[in-house]
Amino acid sequence: MIGKFIALEGGEGAGKSTNAQFIKQQLEARGLEVLLTREPGGTPLGEKVRAILLDTTLPAMTPTTEALLMFAARAEHYAQVIAPALAAGQWVISDRFVDASFAYQGAARGLGSNKIAELADWTLPNVQADLTLVFDLPVEVGMMRVQARGGVIDRFEQEPPAFFEQVRQAYLERAVKAPSHYCVLDASQDLSAVQRVIAEQLDRLCLG
Amino acid sequence: MIGKFIALEGGEGAGKSTNAQFIKQQLEARGLEVLLTREPGGTPLGEKVRAILLDTTLPAMTPTTEALLMFAARAEHYAQVIAPALAAGQWVISDRFVDASFAYQGAARGLGSNKIAELADWTLPNVQADLTLVFDLPVEVGMMRVQARGGVIDRFEQEPPAFFEQVRQAYLERAVKAPSHYCVLDASQDLSAVQRVIAEQLDRLCLG
Repeated sequence: MIGKFIALEGGEGAGKSTNAQFIKQQLEARGLEVLLTREPGGTPLGEKVRAILLDTTLPAMTPTTEALLMFAARAEHYAQVIAPALAAGQWVISDRFVDASFAYQGAARGLGSNKIAELADWTLPNVQADLTLVFDLPVEVGMMRVQARGGVIDRFEQEPPAFFEQVRQAYLERAVKAPSHYCVLDASQDLSAVQRVIAEQLDRLCLG
Repeated sequence: MIGKFIALEGGEGAGKSTNAQFIKQQLEARGLEVLLTREPGGTPLGEKVRAILLDTTLPAMTPTTEALLMFAARAEHYAQVIAPALAAGQWVISDRFVDASFAYQGAARGLGSNKIAELADWTLPNVQADLTLVFDLPVEVGMMRVQARGGVIDRFEQEPPAFFEQVRQAYLERAVKAPSHYCVLDASQDLSAVQRVIAEQLDRLCLG
């Protein structure tokens, strides 16, 4: 039996990482084998590409370059990690997937959704997550959380609020277009409320 | 006045690097400003991507990943180096360009020329070198030259002869399809004979 594929999306500080662990535990409690992975990265090659993408010391790269690097890491991630795990019956949770490129490179960097759709289709024809959870919250709340968390600020996190506003809107638009594959979570609620909705979504997916 | 763009292509050991210097000197002797560059690489980001592409210690990457990384480096190279130099009136010589992806990823890795044409069009619509010099020679001669040269063998150089046979045929097919933009040089001749043909081609390009 083939596993199911859950992608977690959303802006900075929306709680993807915390909830990725929660989802993993929930699925394991149902007796499922679960693989938790992330983008960009997820493979030795992908982690090297991730380092280039987040490097604040490199000169600014073009949006086209950024999109191609993202999809290079993603192609490798899908072929070497996600697809084999699904084929082996594991469930896969990926912290970001194709929708992130619609939001970041398509909307916020201005390439446009058509260009991203073309590249997605070139790279991974007919690949889609079974469920994409969009962790949605006001940009200023997310940025405060990132600042409170501390640590090194990467090349994306240093962008201004308007950039993340476009990221947020792009995710919401993607979700509206294919409601059966997306669930938008109000990530400004307290954690237990968010996790109640996640658990319901997992129930639905396990039955489907 | 906009400069002209010359791409050098061919298999391993075909003499591209040696002749790149010769072409640069020839053009400078005609009073032209010349920029000599190479792919993959040519920018700080591109050199980092080049290191990933040539790394023999990474697990094998998929042809799709390899093509996306090549075009990521190329997008950056064209936007940051080649296009600005041409716009400033410089002539640009690039050791490899788009045709290399038709030969290596399209033919030898098996992605097919249609897939490479789509990605080229996505990344660099309507971009073509004014002249592509294809340094052609029998695969076994090229491989002997690479071995004689010594040094570290990269991820491409370690491929078997059949791989480079496909690279060679793909270059010849590209040249046949657009003869006005290509010149196939018999790189098995001695250097002075090769350089005589190159000089004629440069005369033609300077008049054009």
